[in-house]
Parts: sequence; structure tokens; C-alpha cells
Amino acid sequence: MRSVLPTGRGRRHFRRGLAAIVLPALAAVLGPGTASAATRHVWVGAAPATWNAVPNGRDVLHGTRLGPGATTFPTVVYRRYTRNWRKPLRLPYEAGANAGRFTGPLIRARVGDKLRIHFKNMDTLRRDAHSMHFHGVEYKPSSDGIWLPLFSGKGGRVKPGESFTYRLTAGPDSAGFWPYHDHSVSMDESIAGGMFGGLSIAGRDEVRADREYVVAFAPWHGFQTINGRAFVGNTPVFEARVGEDVQWNVMAMGDEFHTFHVHGHRWRTAGGTPEDTRGLGPAESFRVRWREDAPGTWLYHCHVETHMAQGMIGFYRVRR
Amino acid sequence: MRSVLPTGRGRRHFRRGLAAIVLPALAAVLGPGTASAATRHVWVGAAPATWNAVPNGRDVLHGTRLGPGATTFPTVVYRRYTRNWRKPLRLPYEAGANAGRFTGPLIRARVGDKLRIHFKNMDTLRRDAHSMHFHGVEYKPSSDGIWLPLFSGKGGRVKPGESFTYRLTAGPDSAGFWPYHDHSVSMDESIAGGMFGGLSIAGRDEVRADREYVVAFAPWHGFQTINGRAFVGNTPVFEARVGEDVQWNVMAMGDEFHTFHVHGHRWRTAGGTPEDTRGLGPAESFRVRWREDAPGTWLYHCHVETHMAQGMIGFYRVRR
Amino acid sequence: MRSVLPTGRGRRHFRRGLAAIVLPALAAVLGPGTASAATRHVWVGAAPATWNAVPNGRDVLHGTRLGPGATTFPTVVYRRYTRNWRKPLRLPYEAGANAGRFTGPLIRARVGDKLRIHFKNMDTLRRDAHSMHFHGVEYKPSSDGIWLPLFSGKGGRVKPGESFTYRLTAGPDSAGFWPYHDHSVSMDESIAGGMFGGLSIAGRDEVRADREYVVAFAPWHGFQTINGRAFVGNTPVFEARVGEDVQWNVMAMGDEFHTFHVHGHRWRTAGGTPEDTRGLGPAESFRVRWREDAPGTWLYHCHVETHMAQGMIGFYRVRR
Repeated sequence: MRSVLPTGRGRRHFRRGLAAIVLPALAAVLGPGTASAATRHVWVGAAPATWNAVPNGRDVLHGTRLGPGATTFPTVVYRRYTRNWRKPLRLPYEAGANAGRFTGPLIRARVGDKLRIHFKNMDTLRRDAHSMHFHGVEYKPSSDGIWLPLFSGKGGRVKPGESFTYRLTAGPDSAGFWPYHDHSVSMDESIAGGMFGGLSIAGRDEVRADREYVVAFAPWHGFQTINGRAFVGNTPVFEARVGEDVQWNVMAMGDEFHTFHVHGHRWRTAGGTPEDTRGLGPAESFRVRWREDAPGTWLYHCHVETHMAQGMIGFYRVRR
Repeated sequence: MRSVLPTGRGRRHFRRGLAAIVLPALAAVLGPGTASAATRHVWVGAAPATWNAVPNGRDVLHGTRLGPGATTFPTVVYRRYTRNWRKPLRLPYEAGANAGRFTGPLIRARVGDKLRIHFKNMDTLRRDAHSMHFHGVEYKPSSDGIWLPLFSGKGGRVKPGESFTYRLTAGPDSAGFWPYHDHSVSMDESIAGGMFGGLSIAGRDEVRADREYVVAFAPWHGFQTINGRAFVGNTPVFEARVGEDVQWNVMAMGDEFHTFHVHGHRWRTAGGTPEDTRGLGPAESFRVRWREDAPGTWLYHCHVETHMAQGMIGFYRVRR
Repeated sequence: MRSVLPTGRGRRHFRRGLAAIVLPALAAVLGPGTASAATRHVWVGAAPATWNAVPNGRDVLHGTRLGPGATTFPTVVYRRYTRNWRKPLRLPYEAGANAGRFTGPLIRARVGDKLRIHFKNMDTLRRDAHSMHFHGVEYKPSSDGIWLPLFSGKGGRVKPGESFTYRLTAGPDSAGFWPYHDHSVSMDESIAGGMFGGLSIAGRDEVRADREYVVAFAPWHGFQTINGRAFVGNTPVFEARVGEDVQWNVMAMGDEFHTFHVHGHRWRTAGGTPEDTRGLGPAESFRVRWREDAPGTWLYHCHVETHMAQGMIGFYRVRR
């Protein structure tokens, strides 16, 4: 199986050095390398962050310039940590960490695995209760992460400074890409602020793709964002090489419906129908996958016209 | 085959005594018990009703109280009657009657059956013409239930005090859950007021589920309702036991798109892809079904965030 | 194989004489009659047009009259031409031309074919740059038809008076119905003005349907239109005979989501589930097909209620 951590993609997407990271040592923590079932421990915090949706200050399609004051806001996001939340895990998003960025860490597992998500509320910004609610996996009601008065347990309302461990199982119907998100009292506000992320669960004998991209469509302060970023040059630049097996993990959060489109590529539905555009609404998610054979710089975007105009568009670069 | 009228669910959903109902005698009227084709007669009226979308006066998620003046309005709904509209059929909704409630009676049939829907317009509130238009079944244009000037027959414009019989056939492509609704002159107003319901058509040799739930998403006077009710504690509480075969019949009416989600459960698409959230728009409908194995109290809801906040959320209780 | 150019449908849809058209001579130009791969040349211009969305001046459902001043506007549309853009091709839309009408020509091909789309910008109305971006087919980035500063080639920004040839291939995943549209600088405005159309690509050994209808849902100046027309009597009247094999090619452009419904008919998804209503968003497209067996005059429409009320509804006439 080829590397799941291609440096090219990581470098361009995150612009941070990866030199200090010893990749092999992380394999056991970050994702399944083999098909043997495992119990995977993941440490997540809800932490304050200052987020700029348009760091280059440009809407290049419309020739508009945007100052940081119009694009930067404080928020609370899911961040991945080392064991016992000792320190933030600084890794590319695709490797299962996000270093305090909008859109929580990509959590990876395999059918048969157990997941122990150790969640700590570090919200010193709004000081709200938070939670994690996971789609696609099996769990008991105590790990549902919802809050309702007189009904919910601690996992649905983790107060600032407190922690909770969600116990999840990737069952036979869990293969796929799934969202997770805050489902506590303040969920309307916190989801709008970026408290969501994705679970990528491989089938028991599935060979992982060479590349996995996450595309999370959500509005943010009037922008239409992909992983919290708006406009070409700010949104993620996904990279691949001809011959690689690439997987797009797509989800949406909020109130709106979107249509995911990639230029110059097609895929098939489970029923066998070719597609190059697929609609999805809030909390819907899917993965599409192909063997790359089309070199060039392509666009991927939401095809709702005003969403594209408000930032939901990015580059996909395929090298020979 | 197990009972299709579990008292637990009926009791909680409708809060009415079922003591007077002799269930076996109703089997021939209400739905197919065996696979032999039949002609099924159903008597429906469009009748005035006063409907309270939030009878307990609470939006418990946001801690808001709502007086009945803000949640109760007169409207016209489809109601199921005994033969020749002699008297309203007082039965749980799932059994094929709704006793004058928002969301018309669940009409059940099997592929191969003929349906004779005897419709009477009893609208003494607005005194509008009304009709019934059915999805999923076969019929001649005279039973289409639409109204257009210089074009439509009587079935598309049944005047107050008049009646019409729609002649339908459950054909080979009719298995599934389908909406029906007013398609007469006043359809914009009457659909907004609740003049819609569902048809549940089993395949010729299909074993019926033990439980069938109807989830009809529609706006009503500023609320986002499920079967005309808004907020947990008002929306239907669906009940099941571990080991039962449960079927969710989901539809939407109006202008908006929704995403149906059930906590702690997954199902598969016809193509085999696992899901726990599915989008649908006006007049789209589907059914999902599983063998229950997850005890607990769960939420089901539309995952569009503002819809959930405006009431589109309810409880699903699974007992051991 | 039966004719793909039934005169009945052409006559009603376009109200223009077809007497002068020698159909057999056009077969080689307009579409594949056999399964041998070919290179197909299509000549398209972006040309000014004056378009009336409601030529009969009536919203017959609501009894409203609309003067031409409220329904007619200048715009720019894709028009099909003879070789070297010598003159507009005057043919029924279904035959691959549209004579300057809203919704560009239906371009037909077969898996294995190459397409050479010769595009000329004749926009003397707004004098904007334009392009053509095609879904569903294979092409190199130079034929992608998108415009981004410092990035795109000539094909993404064809200036008034200039031309460009897009080189496309109908590959193994190209069978289906697909949109094409302007993706140049002015795309928001030009798509809203009608610069979109459809590609119908048959499988390599697929027998073409007897009838192919195009249903393009898009807003236009406050109307909700099908192929640029609003309200019954203005929207296309699709015609068939009992026994014919009919195919509906459905697409949407703009910002909104729709649900396509045909009265009195059902079809199956690729996974085998019966349907009579299917949702789609911007740039999503699909085709459904059946052997006609239901004589009568039926409605087809978008089932979003306000869309239907604002014009997205038409007739489908099936004769014995």
C-alpha cells in the first residue's frame, strides 16, 4: 500500500514544516495500516482559535480585495492533541490532526475497530458546554453526545474544564465518510463557528486510497467556505499524481444544500451511474474515489452559483 | 407475521384509549394481511380541524414557552371515515386513520391491489374545492386529481358537499412509500394547511415490517413540523422493541429540502451504501427499514439546523 | 430503431414548419445512428436574442394575465449553426438545434465519439467574454472552458468576435445526460440569462430512445422556467405515443434545488427503487426512461410549490 501521507499535498495545504514528524511512529495512533481490529484512542479538545477565512485577502474570481478585519474572527474548534491533551498534535489535516484549524481532525478507523474519543472542553472564549456527536458508528445512548433537559447524560453537556470519553464501534454498516459535530446546548452557534469534522472508516478488507481529501461545505460569517476557507488560493489545494488512487470525502453542515463538482473527472454511483456533480444537504456525506489519469490543474467547487461566488471553490492539482 | 398495531406505540403517539377497537375485524379494511390481490375501499373527507402544533407549549431545547394562541390555527385536513363517511374512524395513525389530525390517514396496500378512494369535500371552513393526487400508483387521467381550467374533470375540483372516487392500482413499480396531496385550485394554501398524507405499498411477497412510522416534514405557521407537530414532546414518539423489524416512511411537502437523520442507527441505500442521513425535497419520499438492535431513547430529526431549531425533532424509544 | 425526430413533438413544441427539412440528410450531423465511433463537429455561437418566457401571456393556473413587457427581455444564448457559423440551424430542439432559443442546443454523441465544439462569441449585446464548460466528458485542461486570472487559457475567455474549439471525448463514464454552460468571467450573469444546455451521450451499444425530452430548470427574471418558459401553455409540450420508448433528460442551473415529477408515471433508480419524483440541484442532471403505456394528457413539473406556482409546470401528451 502506498503512503497515506504524501508530503506534496501536506505541504501545499498547510504550509508548515513536517520535518520534525516521524511518520512511521505515528501509524498506530493515526490510522489503520492493516486489517486487524484495534482500539484507537483519540484526544480532542474544543479550543479557542482565531480563524481567517481568506488569508491571502483576495477573491481572485471577482477581483476583490478583503482586509483581515472582514475575514478573521475568534471561534472555538475541535483540535487534536497528544495523549492526555498534553499538547496539540501538529500534523497535516489528512494525517488526522489539524493543529487548531477550522474543521476538526480527520478521525480514521476500520470496520471492526473500537474508538475511544477523549474529549476535553477548553472553551475559554464563550465558556459554553460542548459535546461530540458522531455519525455512522455504533454507540450506546450515553455516547450520543446530545443534550436535552432532564434527559441527557454528561456526554451531551461537557462543561468548560471537564472531559468525557465517547465509546464508539465501527460496525458492519460504518464503512464510509461521516460527519461529527457539537450537539450540545450551544450547537447552533458552535457548528456555525466550525465545530465539526469527519470520520473516515474503511471497510474491513478495503485498501485505503493513496490520497484522502476532506471537503466540508459550510457557511461562515457570510462566506461560503470549504474547510473554513473561501476563494481560490485560500481553500485547500488538493494534490495527486497520475496513477494514484484518490478519495474525496465530502460533507456539509449548516442550513444549506450544495452540489459537489470536480472538473475533468467523473465517478460512478453505487448503482453504477456516472456522475460529476452530487448534491448534499446538512450532515449528508459521501466519498468518491478514482484512479487518477488526468494531469492538470482543475477546479473543484460547489455548483450552487452564489456559493461559488462567495468562496466555495478550490484547486485540485494532478502532476504526471 | 407480527402485529402491525403495537399498543405501546399507539398509546404514546396518540394518547387515546384503544380499548373499544376490535383489531382483527379491521384487518380487511385497513391493510393487506396476506398477499392475495384485493380491491380496497377507503373513505376520506376533507374536514375542518383546529390544530395545535405545540400542545405542551414548550420548546424544551431552547427553554421557550409558547401559548396556544401562537401555536393553534384552524385548518382543513384529510380525515378517514367509516363506509359512506358515516363517522370518523378513530384509530392510531399507523393503523390507517388519523381521527381528524394533521397529515392524512396512512393508506396501505400491496402490489396487485386496486384502491378505491372515496373522497368527500366537507370543507366548511374555507369552502374551497379540493382533490386528492396520489404518487406511486397507476391511474387514468380522470383519477389524477389535478385541476386546470378547460382541461380537468370532476376529480380535480371536488366542490364542498360533493364527492369523487379515485380509482388506483398498485402496479409492479408501486412498492414503496408515496405522498398524496391536494392538487386542486387551492393547493398552495391547502397543502400548507396539512392536506397531505402517505401511501404505504408493500411488494407482492413482501413481509410487512413490525412497525411503520410516518415522518412528514412540512412547515406550518412558522414552525418546522413533523406530522404537523413541532418540538420534542409534541412530535410523534415512535416506539419499538429490540428484535423488531421497523420501517420509517419519510416524505416532505412544501418548498423546502430536508435531511432525515436517526441517532444511533444506520441503513443502506438500494445500491448498498451505508447511510444515517438522507436528503429529500418536496414530494420526495422513501422508506428505510432495519431489525432493531439498539435499545435506548434516540432522537430523529431534520438535520437542517434552523429546521431542527424550529421544531423538526422527535424521540424514538427502543425498549429491550 | 424508430425515428428520433417525431414530427408531432417538434410541431407542438416549436410551432414552426419542418417541411423544408430533409431529415435523413441530417442524421450524420446531428447524432449517432449506429455504434461506430466518430468525430462529431458542432458549431455553436453565443448570440443575442430577445426572449419571452410567457408568450401566451397567461398564468392559467392562477388566472393571471402578463403583458409582454413583464415577460420579455434581451439576453445572450447558445445557438447552433451550420458549418463555419454560416447560418443558424433551424431545427427542433430535440434534433440538436434551437434556432436561437433559450437553453442551448442538445448535443448528442455516443461513448467512444470525439466531439469538436467550435464556439464563436457573437455577443453584441453585453460584449462579454464567454466560454463553454462541459460536464460528463473527458478533455484536457485547455478545453475546460474556465476562466481564472493568470491561469486560464483562451478557451476560458473567448472575447466577442473570437472563436475557440473545445476538444472532448465521450469516455466509458460519459453515458448519460449532462449540462454545459458558460464558465467565463461573466458566468453568474450569463447562466442566469440562459447560457446553458445539455449533452446526451448514449452508451456504446445503447439503443436510443424513440423520444428524448430536455427539461432544464432555471430561474429567469422572477419566473421559474423550464427551458426558459413559464406556465402551462408556454413551457414545452412533450408528446409520445403508447408503445414508444421515451427518455427525459433533466438538469438544473442556478442557485436552487428542484424535484422533478411526472404525473401518472414511475421509473426506477439504478439501484432498482421505484420513483416518480427526483430532487436535483444546480448542475446535477439525470435521465429517466420508460416504455410508454399510459395514454392521456399529463403534467410534469417541479414539485417545489412556489416553483410550480411561478411557472415550472408543463404538459406531457401521450396518444394511443
